[in-house]
This record gives sequence, C-alpha cells and structure tokens, in this order.
Amino acid sequence: MPTTKEDYAHHISQQFNNELEEVRTHFLEMGGLVEKQVADAMHALLDADSVLASSVQENDRKINAMETRVDEELVRILARRQPAASDLRMIIAIGKAITDLERIGDEAAKIARYAQALCEEGESPRGYVETRHIGNQVRVMIHDTLDAFARLDVDQALKVMQADVEIDLEYKTATRALMTYMMEDPRYISRVINVLWVLRGLERIGDHARNIAEQLIYLVKGADVRHVSYEQVEQKIHG
Amino acid sequence: MPTTKEDYAHHISQQFNNELEEVRTHFLEMGGLVEKQVADAMHALLDADSVLASSVQENDRKINAMETRVDEELVRILARRQPAASDLRMIIAIGKAITDLERIGDEAAKIARYAQALCEEGESPRGYVETRHIGNQVRVMIHDTLDAFARLDVDQALKVMQADVEIDLEYKTATRALMTYMMEDPRYISRVINVLWVLRGLERIGDHARNIAEQLIYLVKGADVRHVSYEQVEQKIHG
Repeated sequence: MPTTKEDYAHHISQQFNNELEEVRTHFLEMGGLVEKQVADAMHALLDADSVLASSVQENDRKINAMETRVDEELVRILARRQPAASDLRMIIAIGKAITDLERIGDEAAKIARYAQALCEEGESPRGYVETRHIGNQVRVMIHDTLDAFARLDVDQALKVMQADVEIDLEYKTATRALMTYMMEDPRYISRVINVLWVLRGLERIGDHARNIAEQLIYLVKGADVRHVSYEQVEQKIHG
Repeated sequence: MPTTKEDYAHHISQQFNNELEEVRTHFLEMGGLVEKQVADAMHALLDADSVLASSVQENDRKINAMETRVDEELVRILARRQPAASDLRMIIAIGKAITDLERIGDEAAKIARYAQALCEEGESPRGYVETRHIGNQVRVMIHDTLDAFARLDVDQALKVMQADVEIDLEYKTATRALMTYMMEDPRYISRVINVLWVLRGLERIGDHARNIAEQLIYLVKGADVRHVSYEQVEQKIHG
C-alpha cells in the first residue's frame, strides 16, 4: 500500500511495467504457438500426416484469439496511461508485430490444407527437397525473430533480415525447378502446383518474420527500417 | 487566442481534431494512390504496356513513404495527447489499415512485374478473361473500402466483406481453369503460371481490402470483427 506521493507514482509505474511485461509475455506465447504451427504444418506435409494437418487447421483459431487478446490489452494500456516514448514504441511494435504473427499462423493453416490435398492425391510429389530446405530456414527465422524480441537483441533481428534475402533467392530457384518438373511431366501439374503454393506460403512467412524483426529494431533503436535495404539498415545501426 | 480555461481546452481539442483529421486525409490520399496503382498494374498487364508496368513499380516507393509518414503522425499524436476512446479507435484503426494499404501497393507492384515478364514473352496468354473480371471486382472493393473510411459508413464496409467471399470463390474457379489450360498445352506452363501469380495477388488484395473494412467497423462500432464470418458480423451490427 503506497503511503507518500512518490510511493504512489512508483506504484503506478510499477503496475504499468507489469502490464507491459504481461503483454510482451502474451505476444511471445503466441509466437511460440505460431512457431509450433509452422513446424507441424511442415511435418504434416512431408510425412503425409493428414491428422496432424487437420489439427494445425483447427489450432489456427487459438492464434486468432490470442491476437485479439493482445490487441485488447494494448488498447487498454493506451486508454488508461500516457506512455513515455520507449514504452509507446513497445506498444506500437507489438501492435504491428502481432499482425504479422497472426498472418504467419494463417500461412501455416494454408500449408496444412495443401498438405491434406497432397495426402489425398497420394504418392510423394517432386519439389519436396526444396520445400523441406526452405521450410527449415523459415522456421529458424521465426525462432530467431521471437528470440530477438525476447532479448531485445538488434543483431539477432539483423540476422533475420539477412536470412530473408537468402530465402527469396532460394525460393526463386525452387520455383524454377518446379516449373521444369511440370513441363517434363504434365500429369503431375496439379500436384506440383500445390507444392508451389506451399513454397509461396513459406516465402511469405519469411517476409512476415522480417517484418517482425523490423519492428524489434524500431522498438530498440527508434528507427523505422521498413522499405530499407539490408545494407542501409546495418549502416544505420552499426555505422 | 484563448482567454479562459474553457477556451483553452476547446482550443487544444480543436487542434487535436485537426491533427486527427489531417492523418485521416493523408490515409485517404495514400488510398487514392494505391487504388490508382492497382488500376495501372491491371492496365499494364492487359494492354501489354511495359512502360506503364515500370512506372507502377517505380511509384511503389511513394506509397512506402506515405505509410512511414502516416505512422509518424500517429505516434506523435499518441505521444502528446491522451486520446479519448473514440479518437483512440481512429488512431488504432488507421495504424492497422495503413499496413494493409501498403501491402496492396506491394501486390500492385508485383502484378506490374508479372505484366512485364508477360510482355517480354509476347502473345496474349490464356486466363486473361478471368483475370480482368477478378481485377475489376477487386478494384471496386478497394474503392468501396476507402469510401467507407471517408464516410464512416459501416454498411459499405459490410458490402466489402461480402465481396471478399465472392472473390475467393471466383479465384478458386479461375485457378482450376488455368490448371486445365496448362495440362492441355504444357508449352504455355510458364506463362500461365505468371497469370496464376497475378490472380493470387488479386485475391490477396481482396483480403487486404477486407481487413481495412474490418478496421472501419472497429473504428465506428468498437467491435473487433476479425476472424468472424460475414453472417456473424452482420448479426453483430444490425442485430
């Protein structure tokens, strides 16, 4: 129970810190679930596990509910307090990052849907080597970007931004390979197209992970690094 | 010049209203440019106009800059004022909607890139009828969602949400048609795949327009209608 004015102010700011910390925890919890969803969607695809594919699609509702809750918490904080600059940046960064996190969840659910379609068609289609490889890289990106958020680590965020550049290149190579498969054997067109959609989804997930990393840089450095090349961002931060 | 305390409060709140109004104007200006970018990207594609396709890609930078500016204005307002509930909703809704608007811009630039690739390959590929049709519908959606924002019109926003349901269905039909074209004549696979990406981009634009409409409903009604079916939203609003 606060007894002096200073105590009271301290008490208020302590409570505010707790609220902010709680939002960040919920954000990271949601991140953990999203990470698991992407991993499960890839397993469902590569192991032709249609039960797992269904459960990924089912779990997407949990992620949506988590997004709604975090957003509500952020609005409540904004309505009741007038946060100082750095706290405000935390609120804004989480508010933006949560949207990308939810959309990664959507992509995972879509990949699970393609996995199910591919299970039904039977027989392992071509393009799985590329898909497995890019899938692994994207999972590392999600992990690293959440880790950067947990530790407020700008260098980790930079690493994620760089990884996205690599993934975009590998995605291009992989789609060209798939196109060749289709031309070689048109009977597999509809299967290969499903694999192509999975790859596209993974590439999008990479973009979203990069967006989250950009928000972490904004949060820590106060710099808006969207629409800026990797080299310029590094310059801005270390230069 | 304010003379009494009430005048002063009025003065402050008037200035605040002006700031908010200005942000909304900038948001709508950005919307106007995005709308034009999508229209131009479609013209570039359908008329095989590679000069127009280049200019769409070039203009994307303007949209990115507009997003950055609006975001800065929103942060400045949040840092200096403690907005009341409805003003806060306006700030949050614009902050979320601007992200979707910028991503519509990205999709327009990508469509322009595919348009350019298709120009180089020469000869009008199949799937243009479907693309033209869905493209027109998507343009109407963007127009209507911005109009809903300009007039704070919830019914217009509902109309946009309903249109998105239709576009998703037509997109599915169109992709099936394109798949058939590829199987019929594998020589056209790489061209048809480019048209497929354009369709996918249009479908995404529809999703983003829907997201913006959802933010307008949040702004006016205070209800979070993301992750809710069209029927449930209508129930919530017209009850």
